[in-house]
Amino acid sequence: MQPLVLKFGGTSMGDVERIQRAARIVAAERAGGRPLCVVVSAMSGETDRLVKLARAAGAERPEGPAVSGHGFDDEYDVIVSTGEQVATGLLALALRQLGVPARSWQNWQIPIRTDGHHARARIQSIEDGAVGTHMDSGEVAVIPGFQGVTQDGRITTLGRGGSDTSAVAMAAALRAQRCDIYTDVDGVYTTDPRIVKGAQRLDRIAYEEMLELASLGAKVLQTRSVELAMAHRVVVRVLSSFIEPGVAQIGTLVCAEDEVKMEQRIVSGVAYSRDEARVALFGVPDSPGVAAEIFGRLAQAGVNVDMIVQSQARREGAQNIVFTVTEREAQRALDAVRAGASIGFEEAQVRRDVAKVSVIGIGMRSHAGVAHTMFAALAAKGINIEAISTSEIKISVLIDAQYVELAVRALHTAYGLDAAA
Amino acid sequence: MQPLVLKFGGTSMGDVERIQRAARIVAAERAGGRPLCVVVSAMSGETDRLVKLARAAGAERPEGPAVSGHGFDDEYDVIVSTGEQVATGLLALALRQLGVPARSWQNWQIPIRTDGHHARARIQSIEDGAVGTHMDSGEVAVIPGFQGVTQDGRITTLGRGGSDTSAVAMAAALRAQRCDIYTDVDGVYTTDPRIVKGAQRLDRIAYEEMLELASLGAKVLQTRSVELAMAHRVVVRVLSSFIEPGVAQIGTLVCAEDEVKMEQRIVSGVAYSRDEARVALFGVPDSPGVAAEIFGRLAQAGVNVDMIVQSQARREGAQNIVFTVTEREAQRALDAVRAGASIGFEEAQVRRDVAKVSVIGIGMRSHAGVAHTMFAALAAKGINIEAISTSEIKISVLIDAQYVELAVRALHTAYGLDAAA
Repeated sequence: MQPLVLKFGGTSMGDVERIQRAARIVAAERAGGRPLCVVVSAMSGETDRLVKLARAAGAERPEGPAVSGHGFDDEYDVIVSTGEQVATGLLALALRQLGVPARSWQNWQIPIRTDGHHARARIQSIEDGAVGTHMDSGEVAVIPGFQGVTQDGRITTLGRGGSDTSAVAMAAALRAQRCDIYTDVDGVYTTDPRIVKGAQRLDRIAYEEMLELASLGAKVLQTRSVELAMAHRVVVRVLSSFIEPGVAQIGTLVCAEDEVKMEQRIVSGVAYSRDEARVALFGVPDSPGVAAEIFGRLAQAGVNVDMIVQSQARREGAQNIVFTVTEREAQRALDAVRAGASIGFEEAQVRRDVAKVSVIGIGMRSHAGVAHTMFAALAAKGINIEAISTSEIKISVLIDAQYVELAVRALHTAYGLDAAA
Repeated sequence: MQPLVLKFGGTSMGDVERIQRAARIVAAERAGGRPLCVVVSAMSGETDRLVKLARAAGAERPEGPAVSGHGFDDEYDVIVSTGEQVATGLLALALRQLGVPARSWQNWQIPIRTDGHHARARIQSIEDGAVGTHMDSGEVAVIPGFQGVTQDGRITTLGRGGSDTSAVAMAAALRAQRCDIYTDVDGVYTTDPRIVKGAQRLDRIAYEEMLELASLGAKVLQTRSVELAMAHRVVVRVLSSFIEPGVAQIGTLVCAEDEVKMEQRIVSGVAYSRDEARVALFGVPDSPGVAAEIFGRLAQAGVNVDMIVQSQARREGAQNIVFTVTEREAQRALDAVRAGASIGFEEAQVRRDVAKVSVIGIGMRSHAGVAHTMFAALAAKGINIEAISTSEIKISVLIDAQYVELAVRALHTAYGLDAAA
């Protein structure tokens, strides 16, 4: 029988009681007879505690001359990875308390190999032989998420949120039937239920849609894990770990487009992000190569640019260039364009009180008028659009931050996503 | 050049500031040019926290039928061993902050192999090849104490206090010049300075003496580490980590007898232990095999018996048997002898208000009158001796617990150990 991978995040592993609840969920799943692999995060708060210790002992950028070949990240990984190690032991013990055979597997015991980029490593290969044999014999394998081991045997971590990625990678390696991600919500919603009461849980969502949602601020799944799931065709299910084990729940299935299409939706969800800043450059010379110069400098400075709008300025021979970045990168973006003396613009301006609202749906590919519905719905509420960007399955607009909730509600209604009252 | 092993205990690694102090000590030692290996304990309090978590998740003895091959101790080791792992990373980072090249080595990376007795494993072998090469190149190796890895790659711990043993084992494997144990005292004393103001630090002490002191309640070094040092002739030095690095300190050298003898002491120290219980069996039949029956049952029950006194009872054909055990084992001892219906004694009695006081010294081997001095000194203070046991280099007496301090002071003076005022 194909195995099943289950993943429990930090809040689902928050304390011993929650770990015991996770154990009951695993025990209930085991009744189905499938070999089981459980990937766990560190108990919530634990990673932060360890990061703080590491920073206190080793300051992120050691002062003085660099000691050859010695940085911060390798030992940071040694320290921080212990959070998940503890979690594996605790869950294995909690499972045994329920009479379920279980054991922990550390990454070096499997091994799960990554590249050598400490603190942001990428999984390269998983040798699932021994784990698989144990799983086939009925023993639940409990594995720490978020980490791996290099070719020469040093501990790495995948970067924050990497546990989802570990789970999907393990599911791919084990050719699992499915990867169940247990989290603090019971699925993926058409939009944020805190803003729209009528938000509905989606039974299914395509990888591409989930990817747009994940990168647009819906924090259910980590972007990299969705990319990996799509690449390996791993079916992912998002479920709540806060429902009593045994109570049936459907969750949301993240799967290939052709398995979703039958639902015939045009728009699957409305997402928003407040973590936006709008940088405007006024009076940029209207000559070839200027845009290349600007965005080349931003790339060099490591700034990710999202939307870009170029428009004619009032003055002849000049144009205005507006782009958006995350709030954190706004100052860096400004510094980068100002440092480019050769660019020559009249004025630079940053606005942080902006937000991005997006509608996402694979149905857009085959339906016209989706953008019109969006613009009309926003206009009807008197909301001004400051920038637009589109992809095949997404339309995003930049608006004044104070209208975010209003815009999300209007769009949710306009696309017929509201639940029947 | 022969390498040096340094070991820092839990209080020496108590917080980031203390870890930075330990790093300064290592950096100062490195100026001497020797390859360095540092063995660390978990930050104080950390192991207790992890033990508590493990017990909460897995209760020490799982209820219900045992799940085949699955107990508690293997995952307990997975959980508890993370404390030292964190400490290695923190010290490595603190060293790099001082410009000292350093890296952590986990046990499975070396590897340090142990048997499979989880939570109380014993070291079997250490492959020091890779570590040694790195050390020779000037990089400080930072290693977690108290743990190892089995042949099939599972994590083990050596039991509480095992970090000293790890350090000595590492020193033996590396053929180190010396193993420096940094602790919260600046050496081994002739007796407890809290009881005797004139207690003196010993410059040198023989392995055999240290062994007696360690097992008699002087908590400076763990008994197993001293046994291991004696077996491999590893010279151990006990030092304080609370003295500012750079300030010269002598500490106490624990070494072979022939290197100590020149000091011509008869008694090196006075030790005491309050963790004693006296079990008396009155009216035991005076027939062959009865003692064997009693102590056989105690051994079966896992009770360690220390002193034994056998005496004629008033009634003919009967004897009294008195023995001592640790306080914790007193009830178990009583249960064991009572369960032996065939033993047939008239009355059993336990007294917990007893203590053991011992004088230790390799000089006893060649000097007469040592016991007489002891008994006379105690008699002069009106202290009654309830039992006596002796070895080649030790005399222990059991006394009423309320006289412990008085007895220790009297003996310290009687053997001329008091420092000149």
